[in-house]
Amino acid sequence: MIINGSEYRSVWWEHGRLQAIDQNKLPFEFAIAAFTDFQTVAEAIRNMTVRGAPAIGAAGAFGLALAAQSAPDDKFRTHLRKAHDVLIAARPTAVDLVNGVNYVYEQTLKFIPDYVHARQVAVLAANEFANRSSEDCRQLGLAGNAIIPNQARILTHCNAGALATVDWGTALGVIRTAHRKGKELFVYVSETRPRFQGSRLTAFELEQEGIPHAIIADSAAGYYFWKKEIDLVITGADRVCLNGDIANKIGTYEKAVLAKEHKIPFYIAAPLSTFDFGCTRGSEIPIEFRADEELKSVGGVPVANPASPVLNPSFDITPAGFITGIITRKGVFPPREAAQKVQG
Amino acid sequence: MIINGSEYRSVWWEHGRLQAIDQNKLPFEFAIAAFTDFQTVAEAIRNMTVRGAPAIGAAGAFGLALAAQSAPDDKFRTHLRKAHDVLIAARPTAVDLVNGVNYVYEQTLKFIPDYVHARQVAVLAANEFANRSSEDCRQLGLAGNAIIPNQARILTHCNAGALATVDWGTALGVIRTAHRKGKELFVYVSETRPRFQGSRLTAFELEQEGIPHAIIADSAAGYYFWKKEIDLVITGADRVCLNGDIANKIGTYEKAVLAKEHKIPFYIAAPLSTFDFGCTRGSEIPIEFRADEELKSVGGVPVANPASPVLNPSFDITPAGFITGIITRKGVFPPREAAQKVQG
Repeated sequence: MIINGSEYRSVWWEHGRLQAIDQNKLPFEFAIAAFTDFQTVAEAIRNMTVRGAPAIGAAGAFGLALAAQSAPDDKFRTHLRKAHDVLIAARPTAVDLVNGVNYVYEQTLKFIPDYVHARQVAVLAANEFANRSSEDCRQLGLAGNAIIPNQARILTHCNAGALATVDWGTALGVIRTAHRKGKELFVYVSETRPRFQGSRLTAFELEQEGIPHAIIADSAAGYYFWKKEIDLVITGADRVCLNGDIANKIGTYEKAVLAKEHKIPFYIAAPLSTFDFGCTRGSEIPIEFRADEELKSVGGVPVANPASPVLNPSFDITPAGFITGIITRKGVFPPREAAQKVQG
Repeated sequence: MIINGSEYRSVWWEHGRLQAIDQNKLPFEFAIAAFTDFQTVAEAIRNMTVRGAPAIGAAGAFGLALAAQSAPDDKFRTHLRKAHDVLIAARPTAVDLVNGVNYVYEQTLKFIPDYVHARQVAVLAANEFANRSSEDCRQLGLAGNAIIPNQARILTHCNAGALATVDWGTALGVIRTAHRKGKELFVYVSETRPRFQGSRLTAFELEQEGIPHAIIADSAAGYYFWKKEIDLVITGADRVCLNGDIANKIGTYEKAVLAKEHKIPFYIAAPLSTFDFGCTRGSEIPIEFRADEELKSVGGVPVANPASPVLNPSFDITPAGFITGIITRKGVFPPREAAQKVQG
């Protein structure tokens, strides 16, 4: 992605370190965070310095590569296993994290007891995972372009852009591709409480790309459906199951129900790393609950009754029956067929 | 309502002034604002020091009473007409404001040219409007209690409580009545972006009343519908049309669509002042758009990309077909019959 005229990825390996755009500071400050050990990578995933399912998948992969560099020969396997478990536990819902960490873990272990080689392979495997994820998004963008009519008014939720992936984006990657192909688009950006990934990050990416858009309150989507001013919905996903059920940022399901009521197509854009071939249905997906504080204050400003309890699920499940199609690098498929098609 | 052990109304007349609980400061500070002229009352309605359809109806009524006190005999009618127009223009969506101001205006004009008497009548009429509104809510609470099962898990949106009315509340008045009748209840409180009337005000009222509840993000309601953990929805309204369409806080329509999809009853609680007998359908209701800043920052903390446009509709329309019943002081009626029944 281009930020202030320079080309960036959301996460990348440089001089033996993981570097990442600090997504908690955007768009108000553009800062690069650097990581030299897996523990701080896990913390950056937990506190959402790095967020977005494919991006945390790549960050987890690089985190395990960092762990391999510092693992002593005599405790290599134990050290790597611990890092594997800590990284995967950082956030529960996005399967990309499991897939990224597992990929580097398995590739690296193959070279034991050649520890020098194993350490090199860890970095190579992490880079390969990240490159594949980035390329996956570009292919997915091209495939998804087919379902975007010219002059489409599109609703998206949260940030499924270049920041949420290694590069290019999933839902926003499709929109980016359609825009670069010359289509006139307008994007409704729901702000995405409690952490404002829509109003902060998606709006920032759309502005950088020159795509017309407007920020709306999460609750305002229904008004624009009622006004017949939304033509389609595209969001990303944190996990896609075999039956086509998906998990994504809290609020996605509400958009899917609204789309169904208004007979508007609802698409999910997902790279290979977001498919969970071991998950048969959405009810099996673990839903992360985050801190009450996310709903109690904003940047230190209180916004809720102090003594009141909070329920803060960070994701919800959208059943396959609400999804028009899942956009993958291999094409756009009915949700129930997507896992099989993308694997083939 | 009881706040910190004392009995309050949201707005009341005292020593020739209008007094009001400052709802922008709650629940972090409990402050009473006093008004001596209609211009500052209009400003308090615009900036939401006083908010909630029935509450701004009463504030508008008292605002006109203030205008009558200061209107000179020789320009009484002109002065009163100007105050009438300024107060009604303060916010466009809630018809209660029109009804409250018009009531005092019409009662007062009857006594011209007896200006001394007219000024007294203005205050009496405003007090009468406020008292009737308060009593209306109590009756409405009793009528609505019939549709609340014991152990109901209720979703509400925004604040339709004692603060939003003169006293007792509409949606929250029903919940308050059911609670005082001994029913066990749990209330999901959606925070209500952009101004957090749910997490600030409804949560505060429920805490004061000792009713179990939890604050959720606006977007999280769908998750709890999906989990089958919501038994019914009740909200207030800013306007009820002859055909049963209603306007209410932005986000209400989304809750209604979710309720329909999940076959969960969706109720509107409305006092007489919220009915617009001149409005045939929802599409006729003017929707207020509020300042971009409401979505750009929270208490001075930026939460959105600075260069991005904002669309900030403050209300939406819920068509009658999504409404199970409208709760009024005369009973709970199918939406298409409510206007006729409540008037009779």
